[in-house]
Amino acid sequence: MKFAQIMLKNSSKLNIPKQVDRFSKYSPSPLSMKQFIDFGSANACEKTSFMFLRQELPVRLANIMKEIDFLPDKLLGTPSLKLLHSWYAQSLMELVDFLEKDPDDKKILTKFTETLINVRNRHNNVVPTMAQGVLEYKEAFGVDPVTNQNVQYFLDRFYMSRISTRMLMNQHSLIFDGSTNPAHPKHIGSIDPNCDVVEVVKDAYESAKMLCDQYYLTSPEVEIKQVNFKGSSDRIHIVYVPSHLYHMLFELFKNAMRATVETHETSLHLPPIKVRVSLGSEDLTIKMSDRGGGVPLRKIERLFSYMYSTAPSCLIKHTICRLSLLCNDTQSMINDDVALSTESIERLPVFNKSALRHYQTSMEADDWCIPSSEPKKLGKYEYSV
Amino acid sequence: MKFAQIMLKNSSKLNIPKQVDRFSKYSPSPLSMKQFIDFGSANACEKTSFMFLRQELPVRLANIMKEIDFLPDKLLGTPSLKLLHSWYAQSLMELVDFLEKDPDDKKILTKFTETLINVRNRHNNVVPTMAQGVLEYKEAFGVDPVTNQNVQYFLDRFYMSRISTRMLMNQHSLIFDGSTNPAHPKHIGSIDPNCDVVEVVKDAYESAKMLCDQYYLTSPEVEIKQVNFKGSSDRIHIVYVPSHLYHMLFELFKNAMRATVETHETSLHLPPIKVRVSLGSEDLTIKMSDRGGGVPLRKIERLFSYMYSTAPSCLIKHTICRLSLLCNDTQSMINDDVALSTESIERLPVFNKSALRHYQTSMEADDWCIPSSEPKKLGKYEYSV
Repeated sequence: MKFAQIMLKNSSKLNIPKQVDRFSKYSPSPLSMKQFIDFGSANACEKTSFMFLRQELPVRLANIMKEIDFLPDKLLGTPSLKLLHSWYAQSLMELVDFLEKDPDDKKILTKFTETLINVRNRHNNVVPTMAQGVLEYKEAFGVDPVTNQNVQYFLDRFYMSRISTRMLMNQHSLIFDGSTNPAHPKHIGSIDPNCDVVEVVKDAYESAKMLCDQYYLTSPEVEIKQVNFKGSSDRIHIVYVPSHLYHMLFELFKNAMRATVETHETSLHLPPIKVRVSLGSEDLTIKMSDRGGGVPLRKIERLFSYMYSTAPSCLIKHTICRLSLLCNDTQSMINDDVALSTESIERLPVFNKSALRHYQTSMEADDWCIPSSEPKKLGKYEYSV
Repeated sequence: MKFAQIMLKNSSKLNIPKQVDRFSKYSPSPLSMKQFIDFGSANACEKTSFMFLRQELPVRLANIMKEIDFLPDKLLGTPSLKLLHSWYAQSLMELVDFLEKDPDDKKILTKFTETLINVRNRHNNVVPTMAQGVLEYKEAFGVDPVTNQNVQYFLDRFYMSRISTRMLMNQHSLIFDGSTNPAHPKHIGSIDPNCDVVEVVKDAYESAKMLCDQYYLTSPEVEIKQVNFKGSSDRIHIVYVPSHLYHMLFELFKNAMRATVETHETSLHLPPIKVRVSLGSEDLTIKMSDRGGGVPLRKIERLFSYMYSTAPSCLIKHTICRLSLLCNDTQSMINDDVALSTESIERLPVFNKSALRHYQTSMEADDWCIPSSEPKKLGKYEYSV
């Protein structure tokens, strides 16, 4: 913390926009799973990692800080976003400061790791703080489609950027703090080169089940099925970050359980949640299906809207769900599909003209004659049962 | 036919662009299922329908003809597209000609119905002809991402527009030709106000099974499951056009069967195709799942690209599949999800500035650092089984 304060003195606030401009001129350099693993291999070099990160982290921070600047002024004006922006500014300056430092000085390397840990902890509450800011904005000014569109676009990128920088910081600090993870000696930082998918599914189910039992005094069973199109019936293992997989599944299980219990309040038996882990020729797919009644088509878009969610709790919950889903929503983010291959590469937002255009375009006329998506009164002809 | 020839004489070719401009200034007017049904009700009025269609059909044709004009010149130059364009031009002129006619003259109404039937038949081969044109273009000039993008955008709209105009023409001619459909006396034109979904699923399965058996000398079983979230276990009925539902399901069954048989060539037992018909609070969903090994994420985009499909047969097949899927791809076309409610409304493309922009934008830089989507070598760490 002392260290951080010194940094802040050294770096006059005026200097921050300069640094943002300087580093946002570079594109982030996505790493492949193989590179992440090599960082942790026998001949992993702390100095190399240091020299990569002292440049790459500022680049990733600056790229997303540029996009923060394009948020609506009224949103940027909220206390939450001011706080959040100060975290990013301070972290950027703390990291930039290492560019002139001597990579051969062991003390510097140690200080760098300390800084990474400080930065990571400083940003622990970024997600709820951002959600809080959106909420304050929404309560003060309401929601219009254009703002909703921009905020949606921004947050998907903002959270993805955050996942990527935390991953880098975690890997470096975990790998070079000298100790190995006693619980998982074979893990490379947070990566499990031999991640047992079904095991993670079970863990996530158990945690969600605990919450569900506490709240509803009941919970549905789970049926896990594994399909390996390569024939083998052995457990499927992948190279992955178990904690990420766990968080996604935990959120999905909580939603599935809530839906199941609330839909079947009256009935004695709760239909099980079914999970299917399938290994295809290239991809691993995890499908979860419940009998919770599903979500009407009409509501699906809003389900994933950070802004349109109603209650404050909801907004933050949705944010976290959406954030989890970002990582497995194969529709929109193919490269964040479960990393089956060491060739698969981080998918990172880059601030460029195309991104800029997204913040500048105002709502266009629709190119389809779309009727209002108001609740549809179900007419006489709807169906006869 | 003679009638059509007279039309063509009366309307100098020069007049066509004028009429396209004139009618493309109007937006198509989407009809609700209720309106479609009212057209066929006891007090359905042929004159009213005539007066609506003689304006609305030219509007829908002109709107899409405007978009045809924005296709790449080299595509427009293909024999297939010239032919196709001539069909649209002639049909437009034949219909426009009725605007000055007297709606109270029974002969006119009869001639109009004849014309609708001529027009419909003239356009029977629009889909393969368009596909053929795209193929000719592709073989002569190859495919670039921008063209692919524009053609994709155009064809989704073009085929949707065609479905809508044929629906209007069919309804009018079926309802006002004086006879009732002996096979389906309760149908309103092509609409079944009491469509038994599972029945249609079975019909589609049987037809696909016949083809599959002929070609592979074997075929997978089907397991149909109905889930009614309203509790009732009775068959689910909806207001829908059974032939549309049948075509979609037939295509899906054919794909599922091919995948299943080809994936399990060696094994004795073919896993069944599972179909789940679920009635939610607002929507009906039909899910079909097979054990055909799925499609790698990497290929999914191309799966739905009209241009990137390889073989000619393939291109036409894909077109037809895509066309079918248009109508149930809830992701992209919510209002063509199975019409549960009489409130649900046609979804029609409209030619406006937004649409125009789609044809004018050239490829932008990506706002994500995306690695190449080349086949991923599955590395050592991929998974261990």
